[in-house]
Amino acid sequence: MSLSDALLAPRRIALVGASADPNRLTARPQRYLRRHGFTGEFFPVNPRTPEILGERAYASLNDIPGTIDFAYILLGTDQVEAQVTACAARGIPVACVLADGFAEAGGEGAALQARVVAAARAAGIRLLGPNSMGVINTHDRIALTTNAAFEADSIPSGRVALVSQSGSMMGALLSRGAARGLGFSHMIGTGNEADLTSGEIASLLIDRPEVDVVCLFLEAIRAPERLAEAARKAHRLGKPIVALKLGRSPFGAELAASHTGALAGTDAAADAFFRAHGILRVTMLEALLELPPLVAGRRPPARAHSAVGVMTTTGGGGALAVDALGVRGIEARKPDAMAAAKLQAAGMPTHARLLDMTLAGTKPDRVAAALDALRSAEDTDLALAVIGSSAQFRPQDSVAGIAEAARHPGKPIAAFLAPQAEASLRLLAEAGIAAFRTPEGAADAIAAFCTWHAPRDIAALPTPVVPIPAAPDEADARALFAAFGLVSGAVVMQDEPPAGLHYPVAAKILSPDIAHKTEVGGIALNIPDEASLRSAAAAIRARVATAAPHARITGFLVQPMAKGLAEAILGFRRDPEAGAVVLLGAGGVLSELHRDIALRLAPVGEDEARAMIAEVRALAPLAGWRNLPRGDLDALARAVVAVSRLAALDGVQEAEINPLIIHAEGQGVTVADAWIVPA
Amino acid sequence: MSLSDALLAPRRIALVGASADPNRLTARPQRYLRRHGFTGEFFPVNPRTPEILGERAYASLNDIPGTIDFAYILLGTDQVEAQVTACAARGIPVACVLADGFAEAGGEGAALQARVVAAARAAGIRLLGPNSMGVINTHDRIALTTNAAFEADSIPSGRVALVSQSGSMMGALLSRGAARGLGFSHMIGTGNEADLTSGEIASLLIDRPEVDVVCLFLEAIRAPERLAEAARKAHRLGKPIVALKLGRSPFGAELAASHTGALAGTDAAADAFFRAHGILRVTMLEALLELPPLVAGRRPPARAHSAVGVMTTTGGGGALAVDALGVRGIEARKPDAMAAAKLQAAGMPTHARLLDMTLAGTKPDRVAAALDALRSAEDTDLALAVIGSSAQFRPQDSVAGIAEAARHPGKPIAAFLAPQAEASLRLLAEAGIAAFRTPEGAADAIAAFCTWHAPRDIAALPTPVVPIPAAPDEADARALFAAFGLVSGAVVMQDEPPAGLHYPVAAKILSPDIAHKTEVGGIALNIPDEASLRSAAAAIRARVATAAPHARITGFLVQPMAKGLAEAILGFRRDPEAGAVVLLGAGGVLSELHRDIALRLAPVGEDEARAMIAEVRALAPLAGWRNLPRGDLDALARAVVAVSRLAALDGVQEAEINPLIIHAEGQGVTVADAWIVPA
Repeated sequence: MSLSDALLAPRRIALVGASADPNRLTARPQRYLRRHGFTGEFFPVNPRTPEILGERAYASLNDIPGTIDFAYILLGTDQVEAQVTACAARGIPVACVLADGFAEAGGEGAALQARVVAAARAAGIRLLGPNSMGVINTHDRIALTTNAAFEADSIPSGRVALVSQSGSMMGALLSRGAARGLGFSHMIGTGNEADLTSGEIASLLIDRPEVDVVCLFLEAIRAPERLAEAARKAHRLGKPIVALKLGRSPFGAELAASHTGALAGTDAAADAFFRAHGILRVTMLEALLELPPLVAGRRPPARAHSAVGVMTTTGGGGALAVDALGVRGIEARKPDAMAAAKLQAAGMPTHARLLDMTLAGTKPDRVAAALDALRSAEDTDLALAVIGSSAQFRPQDSVAGIAEAARHPGKPIAAFLAPQAEASLRLLAEAGIAAFRTPEGAADAIAAFCTWHAPRDIAALPTPVVPIPAAPDEADARALFAAFGLVSGAVVMQDEPPAGLHYPVAAKILSPDIAHKTEVGGIALNIPDEASLRSAAAAIRARVATAAPHARITGFLVQPMAKGLAEAILGFRRDPEAGAVVLLGAGGVLSELHRDIALRLAPVGEDEARAMIAEVRALAPLAGWRNLPRGDLDALARAVVAVSRLAALDGVQEAEINPLIIHAEGQGVTVADAWIVPA
Repeated sequence: MSLSDALLAPRRIALVGASADPNRLTARPQRYLRRHGFTGEFFPVNPRTPEILGERAYASLNDIPGTIDFAYILLGTDQVEAQVTACAARGIPVACVLADGFAEAGGEGAALQARVVAAARAAGIRLLGPNSMGVINTHDRIALTTNAAFEADSIPSGRVALVSQSGSMMGALLSRGAARGLGFSHMIGTGNEADLTSGEIASLLIDRPEVDVVCLFLEAIRAPERLAEAARKAHRLGKPIVALKLGRSPFGAELAASHTGALAGTDAAADAFFRAHGILRVTMLEALLELPPLVAGRRPPARAHSAVGVMTTTGGGGALAVDALGVRGIEARKPDAMAAAKLQAAGMPTHARLLDMTLAGTKPDRVAAALDALRSAEDTDLALAVIGSSAQFRPQDSVAGIAEAARHPGKPIAAFLAPQAEASLRLLAEAGIAAFRTPEGAADAIAAFCTWHAPRDIAALPTPVVPIPAAPDEADARALFAAFGLVSGAVVMQDEPPAGLHYPVAAKILSPDIAHKTEVGGIALNIPDEASLRSAAAAIRARVATAAPHARITGFLVQPMAKGLAEAILGFRRDPEAGAVVLLGAGGVLSELHRDIALRLAPVGEDEARAMIAEVRALAPLAGWRNLPRGDLDALARAVVAVSRLAALDGVQEAEINPLIIHAEGQGVTVADAWIVPA
């Protein structure tokens, strides 16, 4: 049996530690499997009783006849290791662990988790959890879970799979979806992801024919390469991945880290990760439920406009939606010539950001005509229908026009229903149309859609072979940048000035032991000639000998004095979750106050580097804003590319140029100061 | 009968233009009054039929016997003027107009609206609308409306009043509230607010004993002084006002303006308005429904902490709430010593931002103990309970602990329910506890609560009497600032330098006709001595005579050259919605790119001016950030106060100092350039 079938569609299941008391948590998987119509076989394992809830129980895994596809270990933390070993001995391909108290509990728990994983790996079996709420597959009627949400009599099915690091949110999303006819094909609780991670499971789900979209509820990104791989496959197969990730605020990040035992990266790096890999990120809980129908079977718009066409049967509701979209940078755009012609032909107004149908009539054929006209515009990404009281009182009517339009090919159609309108939400869900309960949820999901990109495909360039000293000084850092094409224009000297310098120059002490050269008197500026340089070097050496007597001195770095139009900070570091990222910001004290930076997953190509430059507000003057003198943004883009490519060197943990001086157009950039941290 | 009773609790109602066809919009008020149990009398007016829906109809208003409290005019736009006149003749105190096509439709509609208002004013009757969906009063069973939401068989009552400029959103909020047991005491559709505005109606509602909170759904702020007055009364009586206002994005603002026929102000000014007057502003639709129980019967925290205590029975749900709060700048704070002692006594964990009860037990007494402990912390504003699956499957249980704690006096308690849980939402509504469907709604409302202030009470200072020339030059502007205490240190000269100048100085041409002095060669800098000043003045005069031959020249402004630590922009203008606002920003090109400004309703006191200075990120270095040299922020605060007080002069439309140079601590500020625009 393949891993996919064993994990996602097991037919023979062991419930290790199943309880005979139906009120106990550990009795739930058996009860839920029965309640929701499991057609395979399951085997409660409990040495203390021959029968559980009317079905035969087994004293141990070894007493179960035949093969076992999946073992759900329901026992306490201290018994997990022994049971995983028993699963391994029995040749069970997948074991799922309910207990917590592992990596998220700190030291001892982390050690225990490591032992359990090692035992599983040694035996070639795969582990789900610990802290996993199990596996649900509605197509095959498998409710293999302890989640209380399955007390419900029936669970809707669907073509969206959910992978959740939080078990309780699995239940919350299930119940919220069920109330409006949105079901899941699978729900997988991944917990600590000690072995199987969201990325690998997403990849398995994408291959299954009953899945159109995969949703992720993440506290942390683990195994980012696996997730990236899943995202590339998702794009190939036209089965989008949608993610909600905690840690958008520092408090949330701290909590997610302590909750999962993972190191928290920055949220900006997570954003860069999702963007780079074509994963749609929503920020609101219900948008995770509501977005999938909008993207099912679709790929990112070839050229997105960050604009939508909006029609409404409620003035206030339409205005709310337009405002919520605008807050997220999405414009409700007036009909273009094509759309206006169609609207005019149908006798509808054509002049406004919001097509108000309250006068033109809201019968289904009118709504369908309006939506067809709006989605024919060439400068928008989708059409949004805002429906008022008819959604509450005449569900069939209010949905008919939207469903009619959605049957025609074209850009996606979404709906926001202003009143409480479960019946209409349900009809829209049945018709596969993205429907939103709140204007904010609509805007969150639509913004994710409008900024959705294909996974990037960066041409693999050969990585230069550069030795990384254990204790690099600034000259080593510059040599590294130069190897990637960013030449710094500085030369190393010992005590004797080299020939051919362009004075005035600056001289700096070189030492792997000195991080802050200014503090030890290690810098001299505006040195006018060779003689002065010689004496400046001697003076620096004397000052440093006093201030840092034990520092190893490797010479001096000499560089022409440079004054450009602006300064930037450019660096590369490794985020614990997202991986290598490149950062560009404006230089100086104020940029730090304004948090005026652009971040991307490394490496980036020149187009992406240009997009980063455009994102840094304080660099706008260099692009000619207000007729200010233009800077050499070509050279800056090349520098960003060069620094981002350092990511390929495992030996470098992080690197920074600060400041990078940007000269006028055609005159390049100057590395004024630089450092690297070896891995 | 008082205006309040006639508008909000009419007993004898005329339905002018009531239709005999029950399917028509204009038949609804009669049907809804009956359906919802109106106990007063109403009188359908329709000359074409003696009976409507089984009740006697009247050919005209004059045929109705006795007094009439309220006339709902259901006729088309073109008949409104005549009917208002008829209401006036009949002595009806309040007329409500359903029709649209008035100010929001542009020129002719605006003229018609002006005539209707003039007729009403002349007769001393008050007008609701046009474009009004009527008046609902659930306590007195008055459903005097065309809103389709009243097709419902019953409408829940409540102690929250809703005033809405959008009729359709009235229905949307009603239906959303009804689905979870949240009802309104009144709903008033104000439409165009040609006469009665939200502010005046809010004021009437606050006086009624059945109202605890007033909610506003606003597209525009009209009659800001009326609303400010209502807000002050609301504070006095402990009956908070909560507002949702459109126009947060430029597209939304444009739409709101075109929809209401009002001039749109900026959203930052609206924010300043709400803040200054102690009105809680929410940004999410459902938060408008969900916030009121949190503030009913309360006044703003005396000292807010922007922090809350959070307990949870669902790890993932709790983390979602903490993250959503953090995104809005509200910290989920660890228990302080007081709270920790209580938690410890109850055997609960005390060390985390999120009190996770999943291990400590989630029985009602445990939940109540946890909430009581959390709200005893001295450094938080409220306690939030996050409830997981028990909210879905054991509503009584899950709510009991929260309700128990809420019965004790103390800080407010709020709840966020992670699963779909209508029954629990309903129980919490009955118990008067603020309950949230989504983490984002919870965070939006809690952030509004944590930043809620009492209406400010600015000591009225005497306003200097300053003549405002019709065409002021820079010297006039400076004289105006000086009259309010901001002395500029510049002197006016004609061609002969005055004695006692501190050289070097700058000289500028003075002319009411020249806005951009640099462009006409009207400025000379760094003038070292008296002789140079004389020749510089002559040179300027010559250049200006060439560049602007028709400009009236009123002399020169001479000022010592000043170089400070930083530059600011400081101004005052009149927002079309919010009224006079004062703006402080950092100077220079980058501040504009960063939109780094603070805005407040004018006038401000020194404390508020200091808060503005703290808000401008680029001014942080002057407060000693990173040990940078401190600026004279006392002088800057006094300058902000002075400029803000200009609001009292009706003759000044706007004023600006740019740049205002900020010197080192104790050395004041210098007005480098200044202008005013007369009204």
